[in-house]
Amino acid sequence: MADTEVKTNDIISQLVDSVPDYINERRYSELRDILTEMNPADIGDLMEELPRKYLPLVYRILPKELATDVFVYINADTQELLISTFSDSELKEVIDDLYVDDTVDMIEEMPASVVKRILKHASSDMRIEINKILKYPKESAGSVMTTEYVDLKKNMTVEDAFLRIRRTGVDKETVYTCYVTDENRKLLGMVTVKDLLMAEYPEKISDIMETNIIYVNTSDDQEYVANMFTKYDFLAIPVVDAEQRLVGIVTFDDAMDVLQDETTEDIEKMAAITPTDKPYLKMSAFELWGKRIPWLLVLMISATFTGMIISSFEDALSSFVVLTSFIPMLMDTGGNTGSQTSVTIIRSLSLGDVEFKNLPKVMWKEFRVAILCGVTLAAANFIKILTVDRLLLGNSDITVTVAFVICSTLVLTVICAKFIGCTLPMLAKKIGFDPAVMASPFITTIVDAISLVVYFKIATTFLHIGG
Amino acid sequence: MADTEVKTNDIISQLVDSVPDYINERRYSELRDILTEMNPADIGDLMEELPRKYLPLVYRILPKELATDVFVYINADTQELLISTFSDSELKEVIDDLYVDDTVDMIEEMPASVVKRILKHASSDMRIEINKILKYPKESAGSVMTTEYVDLKKNMTVEDAFLRIRRTGVDKETVYTCYVTDENRKLLGMVTVKDLLMAEYPEKISDIMETNIIYVNTSDDQEYVANMFTKYDFLAIPVVDAEQRLVGIVTFDDAMDVLQDETTEDIEKMAAITPTDKPYLKMSAFELWGKRIPWLLVLMISATFTGMIISSFEDALSSFVVLTSFIPMLMDTGGNTGSQTSVTIIRSLSLGDVEFKNLPKVMWKEFRVAILCGVTLAAANFIKILTVDRLLLGNSDITVTVAFVICSTLVLTVICAKFIGCTLPMLAKKIGFDPAVMASPFITTIVDAISLVVYFKIATTFLHIGG
Repeated sequence: MADTEVKTNDIISQLVDSVPDYINERRYSELRDILTEMNPADIGDLMEELPRKYLPLVYRILPKELATDVFVYINADTQELLISTFSDSELKEVIDDLYVDDTVDMIEEMPASVVKRILKHASSDMRIEINKILKYPKESAGSVMTTEYVDLKKNMTVEDAFLRIRRTGVDKETVYTCYVTDENRKLLGMVTVKDLLMAEYPEKISDIMETNIIYVNTSDDQEYVANMFTKYDFLAIPVVDAEQRLVGIVTFDDAMDVLQDETTEDIEKMAAITPTDKPYLKMSAFELWGKRIPWLLVLMISATFTGMIISSFEDALSSFVVLTSFIPMLMDTGGNTGSQTSVTIIRSLSLGDVEFKNLPKVMWKEFRVAILCGVTLAAANFIKILTVDRLLLGNSDITVTVAFVICSTLVLTVICAKFIGCTLPMLAKKIGFDPAVMASPFITTIVDAISLVVYFKIATTFLHIGG
Repeated sequence: MADTEVKTNDIISQLVDSVPDYINERRYSELRDILTEMNPADIGDLMEELPRKYLPLVYRILPKELATDVFVYINADTQELLISTFSDSELKEVIDDLYVDDTVDMIEEMPASVVKRILKHASSDMRIEINKILKYPKESAGSVMTTEYVDLKKNMTVEDAFLRIRRTGVDKETVYTCYVTDENRKLLGMVTVKDLLMAEYPEKISDIMETNIIYVNTSDDQEYVANMFTKYDFLAIPVVDAEQRLVGIVTFDDAMDVLQDETTEDIEKMAAITPTDKPYLKMSAFELWGKRIPWLLVLMISATFTGMIISSFEDALSSFVVLTSFIPMLMDTGGNTGSQTSVTIIRSLSLGDVEFKNLPKVMWKEFRVAILCGVTLAAANFIKILTVDRLLLGNSDITVTVAFVICSTLVLTVICAKFIGCTLPMLAKKIGFDPAVMASPFITTIVDAISLVVYFKIATTFLHIGG
């Protein structure tokens, strides 16, 4: 399917095998030539797969600039390993070459002793920028922004602007969107390099800049910021403080990472797992256990209530044992219909397709879907019970009344499940909880209990048994 | 939390109320001034919420260039409505101003009669480009690329390159990454506008271009292409045909859309819903039913096997009715542990964190996690059964042997669930199926059946009852 993928992965796999040979045979310059042809992200992948003892040497074989590029693409524990082998001057060089936001990302993952060493060797300018970003709360716009951007003044000409970009741009993560600020650093406008290229040299920045700017505040949630990128197709978005002063920008590549991380987090929560940003293969069995067991315990305990409902209808069950065999089907169908709805709503909430104000509309829609689904399932089940179970398997306990009890339970269960599945996530969002928790496992537990109560109530009523 | 969000949404909500007044009172130029200050994506949101009858007028109030920008941000049915009100010359203007890939996106959603009208009024160049993209299979790199990019020749100087960008760039979706091709359109290298800005005017393109280029083929899957963007932080990636000729580029904004769509698709599949790219509120109850009912029926029928297992152990159940009350807990816990694993693996597969070659590693990890989880859950359950169920609720049917039967079933169920949860998605991927289907509902059904067989086998063995 994907030739290039296969190719790149093959090259990396081959190198994992051959790099030790190159090193043991001291064929450093050959290895250097091979690596220099590769993309930094791929070299990062290679380093993650190589035995740890080769990493410091492989890193030193790389040309300096490429080495720093690679540094951004390796995991925190690999970074830490390399830093521990760096001399002070090597460390200083790497930090000088990294973008501020990448340095901050790194610092956030390092133990205190390493952080101290990094800050000690950062230039004082860099240290100020690092601390600026570090002071913002986790997962806020401030914490994912970079403070390195091109700023222009409104009385510059296009020619001045190009000069400024040429002079300062080499250290900036992006030069393509430039921001125009006044003497108090208030954001006045923005201009893209495309605008500059399409304009004439003597034109004033104030004449060509866009003044209706969409910006975010330092305290805005990173997921909200990332969603602005999918909505508006920005390359970068400016971040301002409470006084509307420009303090940084978030670039699209960081926004893409945030989107991926937030989605993974949502998916994990929906499957009753405590989220983590560590890749699966890097997690120990014990760590995975820690992320999964709390929810399993909570859900197991909740499921015992369902058991208690069954116990309390023991009499009904012992006179109509056949009722027991339909419990799994009722529970599973209830769980599945509920989780279809909850997952759809959770995803729509996170994409911004649905908001709390749509609740009545959503409930009415789900009610109609529930009727359609419930009736279809009940009809299919009614036919199946009376043909397969009664006629084919010859189970004479299964009367038309039993089939009626099961099928009407099914309809009511589906209605309850869809109702709970759409309201719980929206209410959770409204009161500031994460709707993703209100997914399949949680809703299944509630729907199980409700469907069993409905089942036994209908059964005792129509089958004339004492509840 | 997010001030700007509230602000933008408030403005849109207010406008939904006030636009009809502006129009009825014929205060067109006031409305035009308000709209001109807004971002096209926000105007698109507004138009989706306005009553349909105002749309043609609102669209015509917009300045022409802004109108075309807005056109990209509205849903297909709104586009269709507007097109039906366009005169031929209006339609021609819109098509001329749209980027090719946006036109193709639009065409793919329109009924045949509208497509015919669009193609009739497109310029012949545009029609050739549209047909080029349309011929690629759905969800391939070719189908999401645009054919409008800046191409340079290797013997150009930096100055020539800037001249070419200025002359041709206004119609290109991105000018920031330029591609260098030979006379046969073979891809030789790439150069960014940042590189050009940092170079001197007389320098040769061949001297500053990057020749190790990562590219994709027209037939590569769009999800694979989108994942290249998160890995490499590209602004655009070149798309080549089988002969390595450059045929188009995919830009980061389209890649972000693909990522969002593919993730939504995965999440829907994981919840047993047939995926759709229509937003929730735009789906009718009947359409939602159609996306959900096939899976519900399949899963309901599968769940009857579980019922048959219960029926076949009816004797055991009628002599130990207390066993029935633990069925929901065992089924739910099995389902939850299985879906934790399957969802983790499905997401890791789609992020590229886990590949098929890691199967033994994954199985060994999940086996250890299963032992840890199983033992923890069994221990908690053992204590709970003997204290709450036996002592507190005074249920004398619950002996230590019964508790043992339940808890050993639990351990075995968890091990099976984790085993199935990790192997099925990876095997699915290996044989070219979508692993996302192997999620919670599907795995729950299998695990339910297995856990009940295990339960009754252990029960009949240790409680000395005839199965």
